[in-house]
Amino acid sequence: MEIAQSLQQVKSSYIREILAAACDKNVISLAGGLPDESTFPIELMKPMLNSLATMPEVFQYGSTAGYQPLLDHLRSVYELKDSHQIMITTGSQQGLDLIARAYINPGESVVMEAPSYLGAMQVFGLVQANLLTVSQTEFGPNLAELEQCFAQHKPKMFYAVPDFHNPTGVCWTLETRQKVAELCLQYQVTFIEDAPYRELRFEGEALPMVSTFCPDQSIVLRSFSKIASPGLRIGVVTGKQSLIEPLIKIKQGADLHSSVPMQALLLGLLQHDGFEAHIDSIRSLYKNRYETLYRELKCQLPSHCRIQSVDGGMFIWVTLPECDTFELAKQLLANGVAVVPSPVFYPEQDQSTAALRLNFTNANPEELTEAVKRLAQGLTAFI
Amino acid sequence: MEIAQSLQQVKSSYIREILAAACDKNVISLAGGLPDESTFPIELMKPMLNSLATMPEVFQYGSTAGYQPLLDHLRSVYELKDSHQIMITTGSQQGLDLIARAYINPGESVVMEAPSYLGAMQVFGLVQANLLTVSQTEFGPNLAELEQCFAQHKPKMFYAVPDFHNPTGVCWTLETRQKVAELCLQYQVTFIEDAPYRELRFEGEALPMVSTFCPDQSIVLRSFSKIASPGLRIGVVTGKQSLIEPLIKIKQGADLHSSVPMQALLLGLLQHDGFEAHIDSIRSLYKNRYETLYRELKCQLPSHCRIQSVDGGMFIWVTLPECDTFELAKQLLANGVAVVPSPVFYPEQDQSTAALRLNFTNANPEELTEAVKRLAQGLTAFI
Repeated sequence: MEIAQSLQQVKSSYIREILAAACDKNVISLAGGLPDESTFPIELMKPMLNSLATMPEVFQYGSTAGYQPLLDHLRSVYELKDSHQIMITTGSQQGLDLIARAYINPGESVVMEAPSYLGAMQVFGLVQANLLTVSQTEFGPNLAELEQCFAQHKPKMFYAVPDFHNPTGVCWTLETRQKVAELCLQYQVTFIEDAPYRELRFEGEALPMVSTFCPDQSIVLRSFSKIASPGLRIGVVTGKQSLIEPLIKIKQGADLHSSVPMQALLLGLLQHDGFEAHIDSIRSLYKNRYETLYRELKCQLPSHCRIQSVDGGMFIWVTLPECDTFELAKQLLANGVAVVPSPVFYPEQDQSTAALRLNFTNANPEELTEAVKRLAQGLTAFI
Repeated sequence: MEIAQSLQQVKSSYIREILAAACDKNVISLAGGLPDESTFPIELMKPMLNSLATMPEVFQYGSTAGYQPLLDHLRSVYELKDSHQIMITTGSQQGLDLIARAYINPGESVVMEAPSYLGAMQVFGLVQANLLTVSQTEFGPNLAELEQCFAQHKPKMFYAVPDFHNPTGVCWTLETRQKVAELCLQYQVTFIEDAPYRELRFEGEALPMVSTFCPDQSIVLRSFSKIASPGLRIGVVTGKQSLIEPLIKIKQGADLHSSVPMQALLLGLLQHDGFEAHIDSIRSLYKNRYETLYRELKCQLPSHCRIQSVDGGMFIWVTLPECDTFELAKQLLANGVAVVPSPVFYPEQDQSTAALRLNFTNANPEELTEAVKRLAQGLTAFI
């Protein structure tokens, strides 16, 4: 049976392949985007894990928008306006997929930064969106390019990860946030704010979300995969009621609703007295790992590699002299370290500049140090 | 922001509305398709619920196809061929959605029986399929119509629920199963076998699945919502590897993977010594309820109503003299009983014959008896 045209355009995921190779015990992987298993707050989840057996209602069909006690809790935490709605999704990835399906007709334009999150390119690719990109600076998207793009193409939405961007780790400045919101309002472009790494700030002060400046023209995606557990597959989408209703309609066909025991478990965790301290402990663990990786890279990499510092998130982006980064990644893998080459983060791979994404959350300082040694060896031999 | 064209065609779900109304405490609902909460095997799940806290790996990201120990278990239970693949989905509803997205281009033809499962009409509607229907007899689909439809329209797939069909409860005969498989092979139509009610047989012997007769040209959807718990949102899709691979590719964008703790929990349940006895107890509970509802309907309904007996499943289909069944359902609701009128189960509502779907799994015998009393009163006044 021939597959649908929309799927024929989806490239097979290079990351999946490299992640498979990275399972080799002799390889240190900086390729994935996994939180450290040891950080999962299982102790804090235990009380609710035990309570589930006394809650038959969570084993029944639930409502599509989500488990009401969790919705109520999050509505209050996020201080949502009455006119705004909240929906639980099967991971924030599902939220993104629902947004693409609900709003994008084939050929309609969606703007992203380049490089950008692979999972977003996938879902917008599946609905055959016309993917437009603007380049990214250390302050966020290039604003002149963005305005020109909005004016010229009248895109439907602008998708971005303003806090500790995947893959570059860039965190937009306050001025950029305000200006982007202004442009979205001016050109009637809906802003899709994907915030999975927002809580992983280990340096400096949190900045307001971009959607704060254009609340009625934004959809916000939040994740619990980095601060609680990705295995649960629970994310949240919020926005003006009229923007969220169509997503609920599609979710009904997509999976009826997300797992109710997992929603109850997450609520128990979020309400646990120890949850704030748990997030603090993740932050300091990752800060320590980041500092190790950054220091070792600065020491050991050739001087023409540019290493971008970050204030949070999970990744460091290393810019290289022009070279075939796929071939480089392959040789590095043979040398015992897995990394992700930059082209996979670009809708048009040939527009990418040479760089590598390095993850620092899923290897310990000793492994990170050894990984950089292998990386430096491989790079020096290659470039 | 304007919604996508594909979503503009999706009608708002009448069932959602009637289910909302049916929450009124004075209403006895035969409208839903819910298993009885008291049947959920929570006792049998307790050992694994307790073990989850010692399994940090299930809280990490998992693989898109599913949790390997569960995949291994199901592969063995289903006696899958080596050339066949298995994938866990977020409820079998997701399996259906992935099939539609992976294979159907706008305007391509999908065949279903009429009446048919609403959730299937929704997902095929979302991909803008051309929905063709064949009528249903007490033996299954009308085979002459089916062959003519295959020959004339060269559809890509035939979607059906051969065991205790929703909404009619019809169970296809062995001859029909063989003949449908033959036709699918002859006309190269992929058979989508949806089997959520298969284990709920309380009378007679199980018949081979249709896919047994055309294994390489079928995709099978199985559910644990009726025999375990719908809240978990775990379903399974199986079929020839080349048929399942595209579904995995889409699932990666749709939600990455289904909840891993829920997959582990389900595995623990399926491997529990008490699980077979648990299914037996559901069967006898539902048999008892079915017999009550059937007997009361036979006694109390006007003689020109046709009540179809069933050997399992969750529903009885009552055919009525031609009338406005929406208006009837509304008046019955006012009289304290919720039912679903037949037109909602037809892609073209005006092609429906007057009937009502009555659920017998989620009300006890006293409620069922009282519900039929109200139904008979309302009907007599209406027709």
